[in-house]
Amino acid sequence: MKFGIVFFPTVGPSDKSAEVYFDEALRLVDLAEELGFEHVKIVEHYFFSYGGYSPDPVTFLAAAAGRTRRVRLGTSATIPAFQHPVKLAGKLAMLDNISHGRLDAAFGRAFLPDEFKAFGIPMDESRDRFVEGVDAIKRLWTEEDVVFDGTFHRFGPVTLLPRPVQQPHPPVFVTTARSAESCAEAGRAGHHLQTVPNVMSTEELQSRLAVYRAEGAASGRTPGTEQIHFSYPCVVAEDGQEARRKGRVDDDRNSAAIRDAVASWGTTRSEAYPGYEKLVEATKTSHFESKMEQNKLLIGSPDQVRSQLEQISQWFGDDITISLGVHSGHLSYEDAAATMRLMAEQVLPKLNGGRG
Amino acid sequence: MKFGIVFFPTVGPSDKSAEVYFDEALRLVDLAEELGFEHVKIVEHYFFSYGGYSPDPVTFLAAAAGRTRRVRLGTSATIPAFQHPVKLAGKLAMLDNISHGRLDAAFGRAFLPDEFKAFGIPMDESRDRFVEGVDAIKRLWTEEDVVFDGTFHRFGPVTLLPRPVQQPHPPVFVTTARSAESCAEAGRAGHHLQTVPNVMSTEELQSRLAVYRAEGAASGRTPGTEQIHFSYPCVVAEDGQEARRKGRVDDDRNSAAIRDAVASWGTTRSEAYPGYEKLVEATKTSHFESKMEQNKLLIGSPDQVRSQLEQISQWFGDDITISLGVHSGHLSYEDAAATMRLMAEQVLPKLNGGRG
Repeated sequence: MKFGIVFFPTVGPSDKSAEVYFDEALRLVDLAEELGFEHVKIVEHYFFSYGGYSPDPVTFLAAAAGRTRRVRLGTSATIPAFQHPVKLAGKLAMLDNISHGRLDAAFGRAFLPDEFKAFGIPMDESRDRFVEGVDAIKRLWTEEDVVFDGTFHRFGPVTLLPRPVQQPHPPVFVTTARSAESCAEAGRAGHHLQTVPNVMSTEELQSRLAVYRAEGAASGRTPGTEQIHFSYPCVVAEDGQEARRKGRVDDDRNSAAIRDAVASWGTTRSEAYPGYEKLVEATKTSHFESKMEQNKLLIGSPDQVRSQLEQISQWFGDDITISLGVHSGHLSYEDAAATMRLMAEQVLPKLNGGRG
Repeated sequence: MKFGIVFFPTVGPSDKSAEVYFDEALRLVDLAEELGFEHVKIVEHYFFSYGGYSPDPVTFLAAAAGRTRRVRLGTSATIPAFQHPVKLAGKLAMLDNISHGRLDAAFGRAFLPDEFKAFGIPMDESRDRFVEGVDAIKRLWTEEDVVFDGTFHRFGPVTLLPRPVQQPHPPVFVTTARSAESCAEAGRAGHHLQTVPNVMSTEELQSRLAVYRAEGAASGRTPGTEQIHFSYPCVVAEDGQEARRKGRVDDDRNSAAIRDAVASWGTTRSEAYPGYEKLVEATKTSHFESKMEQNKLLIGSPDQVRSQLEQISQWFGDDITISLGVHSGHLSYEDAAATMRLMAEQVLPKLNGGRG
């Protein structure tokens, strides 16, 4: 297993200013670099405390690139539906150059009705726009004199500048929250996979991964070359009770943020998002204790969290990569830094009998 | 007079990779911070060696923000026509937060037919899209629950996150290359002004500034509160002959890059860009010697460049700010760093009898 850090702020101006949040987050990036974490990532969301401090992940990742030399830099994800592929391909290529080839490019469909509405994009088009956007970006990265004749965008011949550093192109991940079809498509397309175990049962997730791996192998991918990234909220303290107390505060605030963000699913239906109208109910009935029982939050003392990770490794294999959500912004910088230090110094070295 | 650095790369992959260019540029950002320059800026262009390494200025500026604490960070410019105002307002606000309030936001209309074509935007709409885009961005920065009902974009009610640090909003500049009407509009709107003296005569530029200042004052602006930024290519060496030799190489390559980029004006006409079809001819007949005679390139020994700046100050006033184009990429990092050191240590301290 490899480990990195994912930033998913769920604070708004009345909790903590964005100026303070980003200052803390960039100091945690420095710490990730120092402690040997594999990556730092950040989400793309708008308007709500649910990720809304980060409407453009590339902006934050470029700031991280400017002050680090080793750690990889990932979108988690960025949304092709909300910008022109020439723009998105271009700025990701700039980031790949500025960071000397450290970009992991994850793309998502998005799922919040209010975000689609602000950009004037029908939700029913989201899958088609996602597929077309990723296709256009990969062609702009790998080909010259690209002539693109899509449903939503037509352009060319153009040759994108700058050319990406990583060849044939930066690693492409699909970020998918719930859809089995998205996992199958990601396998067929040869893309890597990011997902959030929080939103489905262990059995569902296992079957999604089986589909993803089988479709990848059937399409000619060498098994084991795919990367699978899971995100978990994470609070570690020497004292397991203290970690649990802080973790509960963090989870309560994260849950409140997502409830706010998905409220408009109460009055929205889209054939492209079957079952999403149930999200509102689901966010109301999901509780801290049951999430802990299901191993969906990494919270506790170093020993407790090590046990959790060993369970996760048994469920999903030990070739997965874990992104730790250490700083939603509700706990202090010092809490987040303590979690990262304890993970790096006490949890990971002893994991799986010391094999890491 | 204040002084900063503007990055306008005119290299392509066969000259210098973007990886090396950005590495050098970020080391020059560090030097700008150390030597006390007021700002660093970078352009937005696509596809051609003429600025094409920088399709997203915010990405580069965020990298600069991540490694500096003092120097201001400017777009020069960014183009509202090429992205959704929610996206552009959001990422500029992120940069303002990450940099603790160091953003100078300059917006432009763009003028290259191939760029508009790639984005599927008719050039005839460029002024309307520019005005609407800047209006939407300023409203998103300053108001909550924004309902925007424009010609090109409709959205709301939405409240942008993150909120900018600078209040009521980051300084807004209009970047205009040639148009008197744009200067008048910028004055009326209370915006600051960026321009490139290279593309017009001294008398034309003086009359543009007079219009800009008069329209600003007539609209209630306190004279002297406007910022006026000029960009000049700049090569300084202890030996004036060496500076001139290198400056000529640089200017020849810059001229070749712009000739390439404007070539499609040979077959393009737009009522929104009167006279631009003559650009092709103009770029062929403009020569190094005549530009030097007209004081449009800052090139020479420290004493020679100081004389040039004193002339410029007499023409346009000593309250203007100069952005030095020290690294188009054709000269070495060492040449660019030498120019910056000589400017900071030998030219600026003695300017206007030592008043700086």
